[in-house]
Amino acid sequence: MNALGRLMAALPDRIDISESALEAARADQSGHAASGRPLAVVHAQGVEDVQTVMRIATETRTPVVVRGAGTGLAGAANAGEGEIVLSTARMTAVHEINAADLLAVVEPGILNADLNALLAEHGLWWPPDPASRAISTVGGNIATGAGGLLCAKYGVVRDAVLGVDLVLADGRLLRLGHRSVKGVTGLDLTSLVIGSEGTLGVIVGATLKLRRLTDGETCTIVATFAGVRAAAAASAAITAQGLQPSIMELMDAASLAAVASLLALPAPQAGSAQLTIQTDGPTATADAAAIAAVLRAHGGVVETSSDREEGERLLSIRRSMHPAMAALGTTLIEDVSVPRSAMPAMFDEIARIEREFGLSIPTVAHAGDGNLHPNFVFEGPDVPEVVWTAADALFRAAIALGGTLTGEHGIGTLKSRWLAAELGDDQWELQRRITRVFDPLGILNPGKVFASHA
Amino acid sequence: MNALGRLMAALPDRIDISESALEAARADQSGHAASGRPLAVVHAQGVEDVQTVMRIATETRTPVVVRGAGTGLAGAANAGEGEIVLSTARMTAVHEINAADLLAVVEPGILNADLNALLAEHGLWWPPDPASRAISTVGGNIATGAGGLLCAKYGVVRDAVLGVDLVLADGRLLRLGHRSVKGVTGLDLTSLVIGSEGTLGVIVGATLKLRRLTDGETCTIVATFAGVRAAAAASAAITAQGLQPSIMELMDAASLAAVASLLALPAPQAGSAQLTIQTDGPTATADAAAIAAVLRAHGGVVETSSDREEGERLLSIRRSMHPAMAALGTTLIEDVSVPRSAMPAMFDEIARIEREFGLSIPTVAHAGDGNLHPNFVFEGPDVPEVVWTAADALFRAAIALGGTLTGEHGIGTLKSRWLAAELGDDQWELQRRITRVFDPLGILNPGKVFASHA
Repeated sequence: MNALGRLMAALPDRIDISESALEAARADQSGHAASGRPLAVVHAQGVEDVQTVMRIATETRTPVVVRGAGTGLAGAANAGEGEIVLSTARMTAVHEINAADLLAVVEPGILNADLNALLAEHGLWWPPDPASRAISTVGGNIATGAGGLLCAKYGVVRDAVLGVDLVLADGRLLRLGHRSVKGVTGLDLTSLVIGSEGTLGVIVGATLKLRRLTDGETCTIVATFAGVRAAAAASAAITAQGLQPSIMELMDAASLAAVASLLALPAPQAGSAQLTIQTDGPTATADAAAIAAVLRAHGGVVETSSDREEGERLLSIRRSMHPAMAALGTTLIEDVSVPRSAMPAMFDEIARIEREFGLSIPTVAHAGDGNLHPNFVFEGPDVPEVVWTAADALFRAAIALGGTLTGEHGIGTLKSRWLAAELGDDQWELQRRITRVFDPLGILNPGKVFASHA
Repeated sequence: MNALGRLMAALPDRIDISESALEAARADQSGHAASGRPLAVVHAQGVEDVQTVMRIATETRTPVVVRGAGTGLAGAANAGEGEIVLSTARMTAVHEINAADLLAVVEPGILNADLNALLAEHGLWWPPDPASRAISTVGGNIATGAGGLLCAKYGVVRDAVLGVDLVLADGRLLRLGHRSVKGVTGLDLTSLVIGSEGTLGVIVGATLKLRRLTDGETCTIVATFAGVRAAAAASAAITAQGLQPSIMELMDAASLAAVASLLALPAPQAGSAQLTIQTDGPTATADAAAIAAVLRAHGGVVETSSDREEGERLLSIRRSMHPAMAALGTTLIEDVSVPRSAMPAMFDEIARIEREFGLSIPTVAHAGDGNLHPNFVFEGPDVPEVVWTAADALFRAAIALGGTLTGEHGIGTLKSRWLAAELGDDQWELQRRITRVFDPLGILNPGKVFASHA
């Protein structure tokens, strides 16, 4: 019996082969789609379902693409011709919320925002907050090593996971990591799985490291600058002075204009850029005053609010960036990250690339940690060659500044051709061999991350 | 030419084959020694020396034991018969201290305390603070995934390293990780190398994540309890209330008595146990008051000081634990870690094991993160069988409470026979295969970590 026949026999009520389901599984939020059509979508209800699927996949040598909510931005969960889509989106149980030990044990399919709503009832939270948090799963957050807005102060996914339960390509279940704060028993496979984008196994559970909700005020500061370079320099100065905002977001002129248009707000002054900054904790007010002084010294026009709702309203401008870009056309969202002091130089490079290729590249940045999201917008489903050439220049500029291809979105399919440029050929090959230890037949997400090698 | 001949020819002024050097390289601070005598100690002066040694080792199939200052507590750097000792202790350069990007680029041989003295001039610090910080190297701290006293608030080595330069078994140099705060390009090999105890390659450089020195007061609190269980319960209550000390150390009655004897202090009351707690940062004083209230509510007799020198004096009692044990005999220092809420139960288990085996097991704990150091003291160089049997009971009790074999010392030789009990056979074998991707011939630290398999 072929793979589909065996899946139907083993898990009849978990299989979806409707045209719409297969079509949806070809694409993620990057707007890009795999070629061809997957075999079936399997909605796993628990660990045993995942093991069954992987055993069948191994026996029939069928590729498997693991999928959460499909909100990725690098094409890592896009499933193509003949592949099994293994969805963990229905595995949403929360097995434990433990305030004394500051941990939670969860299934991978729960949405980040749903988990945080549950945790809030216990005065707790899980810090990773990708912009997609309302629609992305915890398992997907772990598989991509997601970041977000609060990373500079509260860390990324890597800092917030104690252990992962992983089903291997052949269906065996491993329990990686530990429940204690400290633990150095053997190799740190939990960290290896974080950000591995479906190439090492299927994440079927996780022990998460929590924080207590922060007491005290939240202050929000919006500062407007004549240009993006001044805004970037001001944000670097804040970090360099030892001030630690919880959020520090930068929007350039094109981004501000696009969001203003989407939300029907008054048009911003031509060329102006904005920093939106939040402080929290017991020193929130004093920190906000010190930050405002730095911003003014760098030429910023500053407004401050200590009202939480007003703060959320001000931040919603930044959170509307993705829909604002989508309203303009198809978007390729890039994700370079550089040392914080290199932010002004990276904006210079973006301006150079815009001039060189005759493109507009609206850019927002998590300025507190040097992570920039330059957006390429175009018409139609396919990325024009000029955009890839400009993206190539962008990646090489980031790497030359001591930075990296991807701060938080991952490699997937869209950046795999640049992976060796950053890792070097030796490390690229070593990493690929490590994936073969977990997956000797190469059936887990083939063609992703380690696919092509320019 | 044999390996020694080739080393002498290639690096004549780096080789030490004196009896004393070879003898010293057989042991670490655990007090245990490898059997037989190593071939030579090579003092690498730079990356190229390390590459030369590894090429010769690969060509001649000679095992290599990498060594920093030899302060390990698990035997991971002990070199035995016919092995090359590759010391990176003379590679002490600090290539960069970057306050704007909060990072430093260093060679592995610099001592933790020496690095922190340099960083302090820039208002910076590298948080990992193993009790050995004055005598242990940064490279060794990374290779073991060291922890320390400040971990609950400021994290462990895993949280404080951005990148590692690694020489593979065949002499190739890989640059792992990045300089930016965020980065998810490919697999996280930096994390994999942290705590790998010399099995994956030779750490020849590191990019460290720094913090700014904390402003404000430091408050130190000492609380004495009638028994160790009450002290453990009080510390768990502090964590459970959301209070976050920078340091929270617990000493049981036998530990207090041993230190009092070593330092010629008045003998403590029989059976009493002590918590030594520090708070720092802008809310240090308020936090100390809140903590003191919890301690008193749990029956503690509390003293508080906001004088930094007095604080260091109070902590020096805890820091004298290792010499106090050494004064009593040969020591096997264990290192189990459990979820914080399980600390009182773990102390119950230790008391049970003491009764069952007729042993005294003086125990200190990093109570803020549930990491306990039970000490077995005996006479002569060899661990008596009853101690191994009691240690076995200790490890199994910790694992049963959701804990781990080792919080911060590593597996080395002394715990390798229990590794599979925690990892499970499948994960043990998978981890061993990963080491073979880095080191196909198995010449890096053979017989350590993945050695025996009960």
